[in-house]
Amino acid sequence: MSFSFGWCRAIHIYHYIYSQQKTTTMTTTKNATSIKAEPGKQEVIITREFDAPREIVFKAFTDPKLVAQWLGPRDLTMKIEKFEPKAGGSYRYIHSRGEHSFGFRGVVHEVTAPERIIQTFEFEGLPEKGHVALETARFEALPGGRTKLTTQSVFQSVADRDGMMQSGMERGVNDSHERLDELFAKGAVK
Amino acid sequence: MSFSFGWCRAIHIYHYIYSQQKTTTMTTTKNATSIKAEPGKQEVIITREFDAPREIVFKAFTDPKLVAQWLGPRDLTMKIEKFEPKAGGSYRYIHSRGEHSFGFRGVVHEVTAPERIIQTFEFEGLPEKGHVALETARFEALPGGRTKLTTQSVFQSVADRDGMMQSGMERGVNDSHERLDELFAKGAVK
Repeated sequence: MSFSFGWCRAIHIYHYIYSQQKTTTMTTTKNATSIKAEPGKQEVIITREFDAPREIVFKAFTDPKLVAQWLGPRDLTMKIEKFEPKAGGSYRYIHSRGEHSFGFRGVVHEVTAPERIIQTFEFEGLPEKGHVALETARFEALPGGRTKLTTQSVFQSVADRDGMMQSGMERGVNDSHERLDELFAKGAVK
Repeated sequence: MSFSFGWCRAIHIYHYIYSQQKTTTMTTTKNATSIKAEPGKQEVIITREFDAPREIVFKAFTDPKLVAQWLGPRDLTMKIEKFEPKAGGSYRYIHSRGEHSFGFRGVVHEVTAPERIIQTFEFEGLPEKGHVALETARFEALPGGRTKLTTQSVFQSVADRDGMMQSGMERGVNDSHERLDELFAKGAVK
């Protein structure tokens, strides 16, 4: 079974879900998310600044109770099945809406507080297993108690990278970052 | 500390070790190793055929007693500290010669017998942590009880990929494949 078919199917389901999604009020923010995917390269680089100190942003990425509150598109139910933020750990979570569910899993290579997380990432919704990315999240302290987050995902091929870009990822990323803003704004991360 | 410096240091130590290495008798083989690293890409693809069935080749990659007999350059001592060939497992091994030792470690994303292994890879000898590759090994059955192995390593940057290429990797890969040939030829893998 070809991988292209897998992405088409994933995109179809994602679009189906999004088409049913209610309009949500987006948070107004001065911190824009940049998603960079150069043609022909097998990586995506996402950068975003947050109005919160590095230790707080890092905590939001490593405490499963917090992760459950921001990771993924709004209006999908998030269930964290496993979350071990340490070298040698594993994670698995499931996004669902109605009868559709999307599993994601990976293994954790490194967690160095408060600066770096390196792990693998696989979307279980593809018909063929074994399409995996390596994710590196770097947390940089900025003046004024702010933080710059740079997340790089390296894929096994340009086709895998492009498939991910077309799957609705951008919306999920933007939603995630805005939900993080909201958590920080209401002081939910201490 | 810059990463370039790290690779320079690693290359220096590798060259030091190799310059002391005795000439060894290489196995004559009709199976050539291909190492492909296209300019500007962040991956290395290594292909090699073996005169052994896929199950046997796969076993040589997943049994630590066997791995200790072939992985790495000849004349370096190999010590496997941890080896868990399953999803969620970890590995660490140390190559040494005299006072010099080189640690390598990673986490295992997937092991699907007898066809695929996906894991992370990090050389601990660099002065800066966090330079990690994603390795995918695919085992394909060929007619006549032979096997084609394709190993892809995807790096976080072209510079990381190029550093690995210049580190003496090629010799280590060739030695490893020839030592595998020898194990198969003497029936050491059952």
